[in-house]
Amino acid sequence: MLINGAPGNTINAEDRGLTYGDGVFRTLLMRSGRPVCWERQYAKLQRDCGALKIPCPSALILFSELQQLGKAQPDGVAKIIITRGPSARGYAPQAQSEATRILSVTPPVAYPAENAIQGVRMHACKIRLGHQPLLAGIKHLNRLENVLAASELQGRDMPEGLMSDSAGYVIGGTRSNLFMLRGNILYTPNLSRCGVAGVQRDRVMDWGKHHGVTCKVADLRLEELVQADEIFVVNSVFGLWPVCELAAYRRTTHPLAWKIQEWLKDEHH
Amino acid sequence: MLINGAPGNTINAEDRGLTYGDGVFRTLLMRSGRPVCWERQYAKLQRDCGALKIPCPSALILFSELQQLGKAQPDGVAKIIITRGPSARGYAPQAQSEATRILSVTPPVAYPAENAIQGVRMHACKIRLGHQPLLAGIKHLNRLENVLAASELQGRDMPEGLMSDSAGYVIGGTRSNLFMLRGNILYTPNLSRCGVAGVQRDRVMDWGKHHGVTCKVADLRLEELVQADEIFVVNSVFGLWPVCELAAYRRTTHPLAWKIQEWLKDEHH
Repeated sequence: MLINGAPGNTINAEDRGLTYGDGVFRTLLMRSGRPVCWERQYAKLQRDCGALKIPCPSALILFSELQQLGKAQPDGVAKIIITRGPSARGYAPQAQSEATRILSVTPPVAYPAENAIQGVRMHACKIRLGHQPLLAGIKHLNRLENVLAASELQGRDMPEGLMSDSAGYVIGGTRSNLFMLRGNILYTPNLSRCGVAGVQRDRVMDWGKHHGVTCKVADLRLEELVQADEIFVVNSVFGLWPVCELAAYRRTTHPLAWKIQEWLKDEHH
Repeated sequence: MLINGAPGNTINAEDRGLTYGDGVFRTLLMRSGRPVCWERQYAKLQRDCGALKIPCPSALILFSELQQLGKAQPDGVAKIIITRGPSARGYAPQAQSEATRILSVTPPVAYPAENAIQGVRMHACKIRLGHQPLLAGIKHLNRLENVLAASELQGRDMPEGLMSDSAGYVIGGTRSNLFMLRGNILYTPNLSRCGVAGVQRDRVMDWGKHHGVTCKVADLRLEELVQADEIFVVNSVFGLWPVCELAAYRRTTHPLAWKIQEWLKDEHH
């Protein structure tokens, strides 16, 4: 782990990342000692920092620090946290505060191979996400809703949960973005009121563009979702998992999901 | 500062308090080396930990650690943070995780004396709080909305800001609870959908009980608030500040606010 470039595993207890969740993060794969889809990941990090007016460290610094960590763990999961840095008590950000960067690379996660092939059973979480357009789309450190949603999965044989918002629209997985295919159209939830807009979501939308498949960002309800031809979830660690079961939805073949899954594996896309 | 009972000022960078804002906190006064209104503060801490299923350290441990810190700073501001502790990546809490406690006492805050007498000008913040009934009332570490609200105050001569929710109801100050007096009735916002229910809010409601003044928890809009006879905000650090200006509301005398203010100063209430 590197904290502001120095080896270490502790941070200042007055860091606003701790006291207020005042920061952003990204989780991404390392392959052969290099961060995968780096340009896209950095662009998101920069956009999220910008939304919170946190100064984003340069791509060069972050890339070289990840490379440094990649020497010990060339293939693993990288996590980058950028916080607004330490400050005295008080919610208002102080102009002189300096961002904290926390980088780590941990061993790869061993998910069951069938998750990517047969697909995963998905739990429809009871929690309803609150609307906060000022923070929607941002991968910030205020993640208690995700913690509560993930808690709902405990004791169930369901590797992912579907989160919906207080208006009844589906938003995504607890740690993934969601797509449905119906007819020849891809749909993904509108994330302008809540949710996290991840790198893989953009890439699936790009897949659509390159393959003449319309992708619509839409307000979708669970009742519409369960009538899909295919449903799948994506994130930067597990790639793409088809959903084989979600409430009344049942599916065992995933022709399009598998194609997109293969396409996503090439990080040049 | 004491971290899990030991002098120090750093925490594990994998602490869920940092990575997800997975924890709760309290801010309270120290007087002559002892925490003020301790029973009430601890009861809230315990309730908030319980709501997130975080094991709450005993009152005895926390009290004795505050006393220890109070030796160096007998009159100041104490802050207690309890997190779910460190864990590997992943939103779901792990059963074996051990709570982290972070206690500090800092010098008293020197607010202008007139804030408590003439009152403060209050800014009506533009941000709208999202609804999350599962977290409403809890003083948890997901405070980005407060950070954004407090940012709105910068560059204004307004020591506090009023936050309203996405339905248009007023919720409270950026770091305080709010009351209005109209006729002979006290009103305070309903915090069942968002907001933080602080110790001083309970105490003001108790004042009402002891003085035969009905206190109603209500869904209030700004338009109703500005027609109040008196408006005031409370928290554990500054006590009670009358509001002298808020949107169309103007007031220069605060007969009831001053009485409640005096009453709150006696911590036996």
